[in-house]
Amino acid sequence: MNAAVQILPPKCTVAVDAMGGDHGPAVVIPGVLLAARLHTSTTFLLFGDPALIEPLLGAADEALRARIEICPASTFFPVGDKPAHALRKAYADSSLALAIKATQEGQADACVTAADTGALMALGMRYLGLHPGIDRPAVASYMPTLKNETVVLDLGANLDVQSKNLLQFGILGTALSEAMLAIPKPRLALLNIGTETTKGKSFLQEANTLLQQHDWPGSYLGFMEPEDLVNGRTDVLICDGYAGNILLKTMEATAQLIGEYTRATFKESWLSSLGFALAARQFAKLRRRTDPRRYNGAVMAGLQKICIKSHGGADSLSFTNALELAIDMVHAGYGQRLRQFLVND
Amino acid sequence: MNAAVQILPPKCTVAVDAMGGDHGPAVVIPGVLLAARLHTSTTFLLFGDPALIEPLLGAADEALRARIEICPASTFFPVGDKPAHALRKAYADSSLALAIKATQEGQADACVTAADTGALMALGMRYLGLHPGIDRPAVASYMPTLKNETVVLDLGANLDVQSKNLLQFGILGTALSEAMLAIPKPRLALLNIGTETTKGKSFLQEANTLLQQHDWPGSYLGFMEPEDLVNGRTDVLICDGYAGNILLKTMEATAQLIGEYTRATFKESWLSSLGFALAARQFAKLRRRTDPRRYNGAVMAGLQKICIKSHGGADSLSFTNALELAIDMVHAGYGQRLRQFLVND
Repeated sequence: MNAAVQILPPKCTVAVDAMGGDHGPAVVIPGVLLAARLHTSTTFLLFGDPALIEPLLGAADEALRARIEICPASTFFPVGDKPAHALRKAYADSSLALAIKATQEGQADACVTAADTGALMALGMRYLGLHPGIDRPAVASYMPTLKNETVVLDLGANLDVQSKNLLQFGILGTALSEAMLAIPKPRLALLNIGTETTKGKSFLQEANTLLQQHDWPGSYLGFMEPEDLVNGRTDVLICDGYAGNILLKTMEATAQLIGEYTRATFKESWLSSLGFALAARQFAKLRRRTDPRRYNGAVMAGLQKICIKSHGGADSLSFTNALELAIDMVHAGYGQRLRQFLVND
Repeated sequence: MNAAVQILPPKCTVAVDAMGGDHGPAVVIPGVLLAARLHTSTTFLLFGDPALIEPLLGAADEALRARIEICPASTFFPVGDKPAHALRKAYADSSLALAIKATQEGQADACVTAADTGALMALGMRYLGLHPGIDRPAVASYMPTLKNETVVLDLGANLDVQSKNLLQFGILGTALSEAMLAIPKPRLALLNIGTETTKGKSFLQEANTLLQQHDWPGSYLGFMEPEDLVNGRTDVLICDGYAGNILLKTMEATAQLIGEYTRATFKESWLSSLGFALAARQFAKLRRRTDPRRYNGAVMAGLQKICIKSHGGADSLSFTNALELAIDMVHAGYGQRLRQFLVND
């Protein structure tokens, strides 16, 4: 390869909570190693217990190892502890808190963790702060549809919301759509159990009015149902965190159900087994396309820095996807674009 | 066929709102004709406008026609009207109200409609009444899982519920599981965004405690997520109507998404097209298995008579399924079994 013509992406540093999630370093470190191989100008700061991290880095050659730095953390926020406890003094030097602080202080451009959403939200709000005009962060993700991808938020950070929060989620969603999907005038919609304006809970009715009154770069289309999301009828789907979380988890569960049905059905006859074998490559492609691991990595939208939450039960490949989302967002200049957008709004 | 040894199912009469749903008689009547062919000892009372119904019965031979009676209704409850309006005097002789009243007065064993859930609930509560100890009806359905079917309720009748309503839904769900799936000691669970007892909204926490304290014929397993439903880990899944409706609609939408992905993926290469062709029969089987129309027909649980709600946008085949659910419930003696169950509880 001719180094003179190779265009290197700008350098980027990601702070990683190496201890978070159900499996801790055993999943996080292989995920980091894969991301480091794929993104050769990215540096990783691994926060956690060196005694647990170091042995897992054995597979890395010298060049790779040079871009991975272990940053010792004396403790970590354990799975199952109450989110509010994350703010306790005992966790001030936890791997999660230190990764967030490193991002705040500019040592890293983004942070990634598989720790509890609530704990991440509490520490993120304390150390990174919220954008002006945003009262609550929202968990946002890019979801597959029959057309393009759609930004869906909130996926579970806020179980109880007010109508103004939903308006703010619309603003954050617009910025995410603009910065990451290159849709300058996104269509927005609000998740509800029906599309008629008279349907749904009172806070959704109020939010619907607020969203209608707002001046959007694109357009607000009103209430939508899960079917509309799947058919790609909106670029941003705003949800309260309770409904959004049920939506997300039901999509994953249904994909699993149909995958299992498909496998079982094709095994039932020799003719269909043969058909299955002939179509094996396309099946593998389909599996990849519907693999929830590909969509792992949610943005903690509203925080002043890029902060990515990986699924707590994620495997290494999923964790790599979460890291790649952080790297993509740094390269896209998401932070700056969001600030500009909020100023113009 | 030797009539002497043929065991006929007991006679059964179903009151049908012929005008309900997005498509009215054009969908309902063909659905009734198919159900009448399949269930030769069932009689159907069709409530609605004879001028619209009669021409659609042209395909029926004399024997079939003898089991279908048109009961003129001067009006019907239109799609899009407010559910509360169903109680107005103007709708007292609507096709929906008359079908419900015929069931209350014993002319029919069950009623079926594709009209609005809220309207059905309002009229059902007024004319049929609720079982003692039940404060709110719940929309209940049998959903496919990787093991057996699971009773899921409420799917959208009650957007805001109290913890005691969720306890009552558990009682109704147990009765539905016992009567229709022959599970005498069903496992129960409560839908939430996480399985830890500290997760979720306060009304869910309270309901979790109430459900734990109750003496069940089977067992209460605590909070569950959509993934647990799909894996068949519970026989009854209790939901508040808001989450239940999002769950139901997301399952349907995701099935559609994956179905479209599958079709598109297999068309991409000639080898996989061939594979697809060889496996066509199994594909058709899979489609049937995941066809939401097969699962059409929800029980308005808690009402004193059998009352089935069909999807408003249902086609004729879906409507037939809703009618068959009503017929099955009559044959299973659901009403009596529920009353016994409530007395013993």
